[in-house]
Amino acid sequence: MTELLLATRNAKKLGELRRILDTENVRGIEIIGLDAVVEFPEAPETEPTFEGNALAKARDAAEATGLPSVADDSGLSVDALNGMPGVLSARWSGKHGDDPANLDLVLAQLGDVPDDRRGAAFVCAAALVLPSGVEVVVRGEWRGSLTREPRGANGFGYDPIFLPEGFEVTSAELEPAEKDAMSHRGRALRLLLPQLRRLTED
Amino acid sequence: MTELLLATRNAKKLGELRRILDTENVRGIEIIGLDAVVEFPEAPETEPTFEGNALAKARDAAEATGLPSVADDSGLSVDALNGMPGVLSARWSGKHGDDPANLDLVLAQLGDVPDDRRGAAFVCAAALVLPSGVEVVVRGEWRGSLTREPRGANGFGYDPIFLPEGFEVTSAELEPAEKDAMSHRGRALRLLLPQLRRLTED
Repeated sequence: MTELLLATRNAKKLGELRRILDTENVRGIEIIGLDAVVEFPEAPETEPTFEGNALAKARDAAEATGLPSVADDSGLSVDALNGMPGVLSARWSGKHGDDPANLDLVLAQLGDVPDDRRGAAFVCAAALVLPSGVEVVVRGEWRGSLTREPRGANGFGYDPIFLPEGFEVTSAELEPAEKDAMSHRGRALRLLLPQLRRLTED
Repeated sequence: MTELLLATRNAKKLGELRRILDTENVRGIEIIGLDAVVEFPEAPETEPTFEGNALAKARDAAEATGLPSVADDSGLSVDALNGMPGVLSARWSGKHGDDPANLDLVLAQLGDVPDDRRGAAFVCAAALVLPSGVEVVVRGEWRGSLTREPRGANGFGYDPIFLPEGFEVTSAELEPAEKDAMSHRGRALRLLLPQLRRLTED
């Protein structure tokens, strides 16, 4: 088995990548998370782009462990906010990781924005860094629009206010497997599959 | 005297335009504010651009009064927030007109943004609409950067966290006359002077 580090402590993200590799018939890769790595230096996400943050995290992980490493950075890009909260999605209200405060603030900021200008996208950049020095960065997007009230209990972050294109329910009202199939993170990770397949061939 | 309506109830803005006309030797124009107009329909500022809001306000004012009318829309454009708060500057925290809450939120959102990426600009769009149907929209900008703490008691809005380019003090620490000479609103209003001079010639 080839070990691949996914630079996260989030069990949901680990499960998602494992399911994608399984669904896509990528065999021979064992996904490990940061919890299996002793003394990993977790750098703050201070780059101005999703790509920059994902690459910085994957580089740190590859350097600390010597393993092929994948990292992602994701967020909500709101048209009426010129693409913000963007890289600041997790701390938009000033309170890091306070999902209800963050999404309430976005709804308040868009209080006067009419229905036809509430477009948004979930965006995920994923980076793969190999010990050989090879670096790949990809981006997955999931278009939709924003509701006026939160709805649904699945997912996390801005899921309760995001209506995916073509759906009448929010991404927090989708089943996890439905969301996986369409989500920004799923799309980005699938774009890395050609490189991940190659890992098992070397 | 030619009457010119400045579509605002803000006495500071009225004084500023009167001083500019005086300094620039534009004679024969009497500036009146909305307080002198009975039953003016104040529309919400819901356009996605400063220019759109300024023009909408000036059109409403000209239509309601039959007078040549000037209106402005202004805000803070922060580089690290992709130009936001922008048209949402007065309600960034979700609380309309709560200056301390709005600027505290911008400081919190920029908590991890390093000193060399804290650039910002005050932006003002000013629109002039004449009864003849002539419409002119101009934009004034004032570049600077953002502090990490509010400083100074003059001005309003985001003045306490805005360091104008070339200054070591915030725009809330400048004297009003110094600010007038450089500010985004002063620049925009001065760009309307050629059209305003023509008003007195007709």
